[in-house]
Amino acid sequence: MKIKLIVCYDGTNFCGWQIQKNGVSVQETIENAIFSLTGERVKVTGSGRTDAGVHALGQVADFDTISSIPPEKFAFALNPILPDSVKILKSERASDGFNARKSAKRKTYVYSLYSSLVENPLKERYATRIEGDLDLEEMKSACKIIKGKHDFKCMCSTGSGATTTVRTIYSISVKRLGDDVKITVTGNGFLYNMVRIIAGTLVGVGQGKISLEAIKEALERGERHLLGRTLSAKGLCLQSVKY
Amino acid sequence: MKIKLIVCYDGTNFCGWQIQKNGVSVQETIENAIFSLTGERVKVTGSGRTDAGVHALGQVADFDTISSIPPEKFAFALNPILPDSVKILKSERASDGFNARKSAKRKTYVYSLYSSLVENPLKERYATRIEGDLDLEEMKSACKIIKGKHDFKCMCSTGSGATTTVRTIYSISVKRLGDDVKITVTGNGFLYNMVRIIAGTLVGVGQGKISLEAIKEALERGERHLLGRTLSAKGLCLQSVKY
Repeated sequence: MKIKLIVCYDGTNFCGWQIQKNGVSVQETIENAIFSLTGERVKVTGSGRTDAGVHALGQVADFDTISSIPPEKFAFALNPILPDSVKILKSERASDGFNARKSAKRKTYVYSLYSSLVENPLKERYATRIEGDLDLEEMKSACKIIKGKHDFKCMCSTGSGATTTVRTIYSISVKRLGDDVKITVTGNGFLYNMVRIIAGTLVGVGQGKISLEAIKEALERGERHLLGRTLSAKGLCLQSVKY
Repeated sequence: MKIKLIVCYDGTNFCGWQIQKNGVSVQETIENAIFSLTGERVKVTGSGRTDAGVHALGQVADFDTISSIPPEKFAFALNPILPDSVKILKSERASDGFNARKSAKRKTYVYSLYSSLVENPLKERYATRIEGDLDLEEMKSACKIIKGKHDFKCMCSTGSGATTTVRTIYSISVKRLGDDVKITVTGNGFLYNMVRIIAGTLVGVGQGKISLEAIKEALERGERHLLGRTLSAKGLCLQSVKY
């Protein structure tokens, strides 16, 4: 039987979703919890990797089991075994053909920023600080350029290994609430560091350091250096995955 | 010269504001940073104690110094010395008669809750989880009863040592945003655990376990047992202090 999980994690102390030699991953943490619960050594497939330090509110994962635990009870059975930093928000039965990675249709990421001259200990864990004001109208104009189907080669860190760098962004928005700014991006898939580069580019636009023309040019020519820096992992959260 | 500090801290790993034998306090952390900076052993006075695990966005503190560092530069000079969990948002010169504790006119606390059947690792650090829905209208009615000048003996844990238990609550409100509920209370002073008991009582009201009549009765008779439980420290944040 195939089980689908909605996974929430604080990525601060993980080496990322995927199992790696140096560091504890979310994936192995869940696989170990399933082993403790059922005695089965399963492979948990996530909708995609999240990098070291990236958070998730709604990562989706699947695994096969021969356990007799009812699908919707897995969340409640696994949570007491899992550390505080990882919890299963929901578990349910998935069709045999379901694959959390291959079946994913769209993903939504949120990048969180806050504006302050000084680090705020209550915000630092889940957001990136910027100094000074951002021109939100200019950032919204940049969103209109980024939205749509493009070759996003310019918004990808090297080492991606992706066969194609063409992706479609269905929606991208910037919202301010007091000193907090949230960038929300939904697309059919994202390249390595793509959301963190988009966030860095939008910040650059908001600070008047990057022009709208530069973004158009970067998209046309595939030139990474025309855009903003890759913002830190802690501000990024995988919000949801749709199938 | 007297310096006034606006202090923000993540209280998770502190034994509270005040210096204690068992654990690291915010007060001594700041006093040590001032010693590193100026070589002076000063006493930092806070607007009041916060308990172990309680956070602050706008704690106010003062200290005397003979250092020649300009008052408004203390924040920027202390922050690199302070740990990530404590930062000075602002520093300025205060009048000689200023006393962060005695001069305080009103304090605002926010208690954060979230509604979920499962622990959410991204919310657990700064909020208390409740299961099921809350009747916000009933909670707002309870706020109207609590607001004003009362003998709050029923909303105080033993061991307070306060000479009088009469306090005035200027405003108290409950707001919902999605699964998050925030209780905001402003008063001229608060008794030991008072905000956490108010929050627990409002949750009890929202869950239909405590009647509005019971709150009136508790206030009249000073009977703690009629009210809700003392909610955990992590959901509480000292928002601001006015002078």
